[in-house]
Amino acid sequence: MTATSLLPAAIDALRARLASIVGPAHVLHDGDLSAWEQDWRKRSRGQALAVVRPGNTAEVAAVVRACVDAGVSLVPQGGNTGLVVGSTPDGTGTQVVLSLRRLAAVRGIDAANMTLTVEAGCVLQSVQEAARAAGFLFPLSLAAEGSCTIGGNLAANAGGTQVLRYGNARDLCLGLEVVTAQGEVWDGLSGLRKDNTGYDLRDLFIGSEGTLGVITAATMKLYPLPAATLTAWAAVPSMDAAVTLLGMARRHLGADLTGFEVMGQFALSLVDKHFPQIRVPFVADSPFGVLLECADTESEAHARSRFEALLEAALEDGCATDAVVAESIAQARELWHARESISLAQAEEGLNIKHDISVPISRIPAFCEETGERLAREIPGVRLVNFGHLGDGNLHYNVQAPEGGDAAAFLREQEDRVNTLVYDQVRKFGGSISAEHGVGSLKAATLPHYKSPVALGLMRAIKGALDPDNRMNPGRVLQA
Amino acid sequence: MTATSLLPAAIDALRARLASIVGPAHVLHDGDLSAWEQDWRKRSRGQALAVVRPGNTAEVAAVVRACVDAGVSLVPQGGNTGLVVGSTPDGTGTQVVLSLRRLAAVRGIDAANMTLTVEAGCVLQSVQEAARAAGFLFPLSLAAEGSCTIGGNLAANAGGTQVLRYGNARDLCLGLEVVTAQGEVWDGLSGLRKDNTGYDLRDLFIGSEGTLGVITAATMKLYPLPAATLTAWAAVPSMDAAVTLLGMARRHLGADLTGFEVMGQFALSLVDKHFPQIRVPFVADSPFGVLLECADTESEAHARSRFEALLEAALEDGCATDAVVAESIAQARELWHARESISLAQAEEGLNIKHDISVPISRIPAFCEETGERLAREIPGVRLVNFGHLGDGNLHYNVQAPEGGDAAAFLREQEDRVNTLVYDQVRKFGGSISAEHGVGSLKAATLPHYKSPVALGLMRAIKGALDPDNRMNPGRVLQA
Repeated sequence: MTATSLLPAAIDALRARLASIVGPAHVLHDGDLSAWEQDWRKRSRGQALAVVRPGNTAEVAAVVRACVDAGVSLVPQGGNTGLVVGSTPDGTGTQVVLSLRRLAAVRGIDAANMTLTVEAGCVLQSVQEAARAAGFLFPLSLAAEGSCTIGGNLAANAGGTQVLRYGNARDLCLGLEVVTAQGEVWDGLSGLRKDNTGYDLRDLFIGSEGTLGVITAATMKLYPLPAATLTAWAAVPSMDAAVTLLGMARRHLGADLTGFEVMGQFALSLVDKHFPQIRVPFVADSPFGVLLECADTESEAHARSRFEALLEAALEDGCATDAVVAESIAQARELWHARESISLAQAEEGLNIKHDISVPISRIPAFCEETGERLAREIPGVRLVNFGHLGDGNLHYNVQAPEGGDAAAFLREQEDRVNTLVYDQVRKFGGSISAEHGVGSLKAATLPHYKSPVALGLMRAIKGALDPDNRMNPGRVLQA
Repeated sequence: MTATSLLPAAIDALRARLASIVGPAHVLHDGDLSAWEQDWRKRSRGQALAVVRPGNTAEVAAVVRACVDAGVSLVPQGGNTGLVVGSTPDGTGTQVVLSLRRLAAVRGIDAANMTLTVEAGCVLQSVQEAARAAGFLFPLSLAAEGSCTIGGNLAANAGGTQVLRYGNARDLCLGLEVVTAQGEVWDGLSGLRKDNTGYDLRDLFIGSEGTLGVITAATMKLYPLPAATLTAWAAVPSMDAAVTLLGMARRHLGADLTGFEVMGQFALSLVDKHFPQIRVPFVADSPFGVLLECADTESEAHARSRFEALLEAALEDGCATDAVVAESIAQARELWHARESISLAQAEEGLNIKHDISVPISRIPAFCEETGERLAREIPGVRLVNFGHLGDGNLHYNVQAPEGGDAAAFLREQEDRVNTLVYDQVRKFGGSISAEHGVGSLKAATLPHYKSPVALGLMRAIKGALDPDNRMNPGRVLQA
């Protein structure tokens, strides 16, 4: 029996079995379920057969087995902050949302091993705080950190602003606990930095967006807290110059370079326009701004002298035309605030077409120049909100409607055309159509046009092997 | 038809087809093939149906298809320096050795992207040299670097002495080109630091020891060359103190700490005994020696002042009782030479039972104490050659016969017993029975005793999905 043909009695029986596993209070199926059924960017509203909230790993496994027995598919969900419609149910009312939010414990911190073991539903900010309370840095950091969960971060292989130094969520994880599609528990929690005993199951589950199993806990790496963190902002004449400045910063600062964000003048001008209380350095005069962050193990004075040496060299080279170093933590926060306000500012300006792409860093200047020209030719007056993590080759290359035009009509009429143009350019330059946000259902239909058929064949074989009945988050990553 | 029942005519036909693909000069099947049939540590001598040496990726794919068509299995081989009998054929004479050595080109270096794309058969030292010639560091470094290949390093997820800072081979790789078990080419070469478009095929092939496909090329990360590298040696009173010193070094040096090797007094005494020309610091007085390496982006003077501050703090704390900092590159090499001579010195002392294990760093002192006591109780007079990469929790925990005993008899009679004792202890302390050497066929029968059945089930499902006829390096990692 397929899920769509479940009879009302079978639905009731499944809900009763789920209630017997997690308790009746944790099986929701009427009332307002929009917190679980509506995706973060409000692109899709689904309908769940039930929202189930298990309290521990054994309950997660039992929930999976109950759904498998009933022939019902599962949609694992953390903080539901994903940007690609990956953790909300479809509209059929036949899928169970498996919320991990009650698995929120920090199971332990091992100071000498510099690791932390945490359950999937723990909010990222709580993980950061637990690490800090033990005298360590947990470096994963992104806009949704107050709401997103570490399990969701791992399922999506989240990126953020510290990837340049510390890597993606994947790179911060040493081991996982996973409930398989058969409802078995794989205890792959590990505090080991080296373990060559077979296939890398950990990295297979990381980034698989809940389509192969459910991450219930993880052991994550911790780092020493830096003695000082400094922030600077450089005015940069071109994207080419930004790439030159990046290479210079890597040579000067080595691993102490923790952030390198590039922002186009139009993106910054929107912040200046819509949030006049935010000071945006050099916005009137400079084609690009670059935000640099440096973490130092020694002292603030040492960090400052290195930063100043770098910026002097950059000014002399010409890859920066002006620069400021934040004099205080408050000033540093102001600079970051300008960077982080771009998304809100473009929303204030109106609807736009968003892309989360990556290209080899060396090719970003040519990609931007050529793609910008093509867009301008195809859609006269189009405006580019171009910003991102240049140190990772990751741009949020967003396309805003021409000034004064009807933004809703623009989105309706141009989104497919703009996406195709941008993604074709990404392919031409050896890039990725999803750098850090994942595939979800938003890009599942697009992916086959840009991913190699051999890779897709391997992915389908793996999906078929680990989840042969396609019960885990079906239609995400791979289309049915 | 299975490989073992191939008729002579079918064997001739396969050899002829292989010769038509790669040229007759590159299909070897008589004469002395020991370079391909004998494993590095001379534990196993196999017999190949043929040794095939393709010259490019298309030829690798055609060789795989020819073998698949003939029902013959393949053993991919790089430098044949592996330590777990993973790249030599079995004794049946029915397997084709696929040597990657002729795929040795550096395809390109992208300076602004800080990446290098290289073919699988390139010798590690050549990769290091190509990086250095372009002004970069390629940090993977291990004893066999003059012979091993980058493809083998990736297939085995090699470790070495720089893992603490730069990670294993896995962590240095951005993308792969792979010939699948069906003889298709997956072009997953990528210079991207962020790409969330589906399952992590890259990390699945890395560390799979040629059992899922053949790695033919890779894009690897490069790093800035440090301005200065300094080496120090500390006398340390206990393993506990070594762990304390490690934490202190991480706080003082951050990411500039690139090496942290611990060596037990007995291991060092063997170097002192068999190679009297090598100066071994503090060997007479100290239970452990620790070799520290620090890479600095600024200057040698800066590195020296930081190293001195660390060592002063360590002496004050008592976790180090004495220390020297190398005054010159020659002195630094001497210190490394003492560390690297342990393997040869223990060979001079006689046969011994080797282990390549990892345990969470916090648990290493208790593991060593308890395991040492148990071994001493079970086998009076047994001697421990205990050394390794403490910064990664990785010990080469080798067991030497009692002094004056018959080492060959010791190995024959005690190896299984010693392995079981050590591996049971490893499991008890949450460790791995193969930290960096892999499984191969040497540990394939042991693995199921120490790996979770759920993990093994997932591994078998993946193997079955990607290589359903078990043609790729059969019997390695997973037993038939």
